[in-house]
Amino acid sequence: MTILPIAVDAMGGDKAPAEIVAGAIRASQELEVPVLLVGRPDELGDTGGLEVLEASEVIAMDADPASSVRTMKDSSLVRAAEAVRDGRASAMVSAGNTGATMASALLRMGRIKGVQRPAIATPIPVPGGTPTVLLDAGANAECSPEWLVQFAQMGAVFARSRYGIEAPKVALLSIGEESSKGNPLVKETHKLLAETAWTGGTGARFIGNVEGRDLMTDEADVVVTDGFTGNVALKTLEGALRTIVANLLGAFDASEETRAASAVLWPALGPLYAQLDPENTGGAMLLGVDGVCIISHGSSSSVAMVNAIRVARDMVVGEVVEHLRVAVRPAED
Amino acid sequence: MTILPIAVDAMGGDKAPAEIVAGAIRASQELEVPVLLVGRPDELGDTGGLEVLEASEVIAMDADPASSVRTMKDSSLVRAAEAVRDGRASAMVSAGNTGATMASALLRMGRIKGVQRPAIATPIPVPGGTPTVLLDAGANAECSPEWLVQFAQMGAVFARSRYGIEAPKVALLSIGEESSKGNPLVKETHKLLAETAWTGGTGARFIGNVEGRDLMTDEADVVVTDGFTGNVALKTLEGALRTIVANLLGAFDASEETRAASAVLWPALGPLYAQLDPENTGGAMLLGVDGVCIISHGSSSSVAMVNAIRVARDMVVGEVVEHLRVAVRPAED
Repeated sequence: MTILPIAVDAMGGDKAPAEIVAGAIRASQELEVPVLLVGRPDELGDTGGLEVLEASEVIAMDADPASSVRTMKDSSLVRAAEAVRDGRASAMVSAGNTGATMASALLRMGRIKGVQRPAIATPIPVPGGTPTVLLDAGANAECSPEWLVQFAQMGAVFARSRYGIEAPKVALLSIGEESSKGNPLVKETHKLLAETAWTGGTGARFIGNVEGRDLMTDEADVVVTDGFTGNVALKTLEGALRTIVANLLGAFDASEETRAASAVLWPALGPLYAQLDPENTGGAMLLGVDGVCIISHGSSSSVAMVNAIRVARDMVVGEVVEHLRVAVRPAED
Repeated sequence: MTILPIAVDAMGGDKAPAEIVAGAIRASQELEVPVLLVGRPDELGDTGGLEVLEASEVIAMDADPASSVRTMKDSSLVRAAEAVRDGRASAMVSAGNTGATMASALLRMGRIKGVQRPAIATPIPVPGGTPTVLLDAGANAECSPEWLVQFAQMGAVFARSRYGIEAPKVALLSIGEESSKGNPLVKETHKLLAETAWTGGTGARFIGNVEGRDLMTDEADVVVTDGFTGNVALKTLEGALRTIVANLLGAFDASEETRAASAVLWPALGPLYAQLDPENTGGAMLLGVDGVCIISHGSSSSVAMVNAIRVARDMVVGEVVEHLRVAVRPAED
């Protein structure tokens, strides 16, 4: 299947543009997917023959999202989103300012009809299993029960498209399994999710509440929560993994003997490490905008970019936006 | 200093009563602290000469807290709380039903004057550093900004009493460092904490917002949040640690070679493992009730009980309840 190019924000991310461009070149070669680099041509270095869409401005990693997108109309992020809107690209990928990526996508691509709020779907690694899709991972600090039901619909479509799960187990993040546990938002959402009408053609099954300790297990395929709680959970998990890995590597490197011993262990530990490495998860997806928008980690290297571009391609080929459109369509349509 | 006995709920916890009694006996010997076992005398086995307070009922781990405490007046949890109220014990410790432990303590001991809501303060391990005190870790699913300010006061007193931190760094859990980030509760609380009047004599300093990834670091000594978010963060962290440790141990045990290699690494890894083991954290404390109430993990072994009883003793000797009373006293008193 031939697809339009993937628009890559060459200027976004802690390691931009060098690692971003390197990843884009590798992706175009290894995945045979066309890539459109968006950014300042004279800062990109050797682009390996990739097409470049010129954009003169760069939204900084810590810039205010709303005002940046409003004022910096020639920024790489805004131009990348416009390329999707205008049919010049099939998807956008950025490792830049997350808020500005969301705002660019939302303002330029618009929402899928019927979507109340887009949400960030982030894969949580499950060693030896399929990642758990957590949403909303930070797009909406405040949510209504109805939005969370739509997140459940969109998350189920995403889990199906990305991981091939035919009947995704959807759960609600709470502080106990009982439907009586949680805050008012969770209790009200639980009631709505317990009715099966929302599942539509998604194949989803609501399995009830789960707790934070279930995120890195196969308990659920999709876990729904508000963007505040989701972001806290995601960052807590990232922090825990980072602390453990740093301390483990320190222990492995303590002496000549431990270095030799860790070399023996590496064949057993390597696959685990690879599964937990954010570089390999392929990035999060902004669900609900009218186009494919992949949000990669700010620290993305070229490897992370290859994986993010692969996910973007898969989502385009799998027509995930069309499936989302059907899943959220109000019954009266 | 001679103190009244620590009342230990002998019937609470997944491994009760055997491990609880074993831990109580060890604590009384090793710490030279008097222990009062509360439960069914004929189920406790050899109590090593410890005093027993008879209680005929047991609140199950999954029982409804409020109704259990209301109807089971002769339960070990209710009797333990009454022992503190009646001046027969200086503190209570339980590894049983957390909700019922809170309800027993609240209903029998009452609140410290001025406290709006008690909160659970849970130590989060920081490898190589002092644990971060997280509160509320689950007592109040819904909170007001004013309650969170009081949690900050109480958390600072606790960090000082338990870890000897003279000027605790207090932070607010959010989804970005900027005061504009977060949900309405966080934004409003940020404003209140930014005023310094609340710190009173606690020595606390408000350092602003932190994110989930800062919990296992030395960034803050006390992190304040509502009980829903706090419980999700805590469970997420526990789940991540459990998944990693299980997978590591599996890798270490993969073959003869890896077992030999892991034996070489153990001197370097052991201290890390010990710091992360919930058995060693000594349990959480319910802050704001008029007495010392230590909540130990449901899976507590005798080792965890020894540590929990040690913390209970330290909190009694350090007169933490008196310090809390001063910290939350309204200015007009």
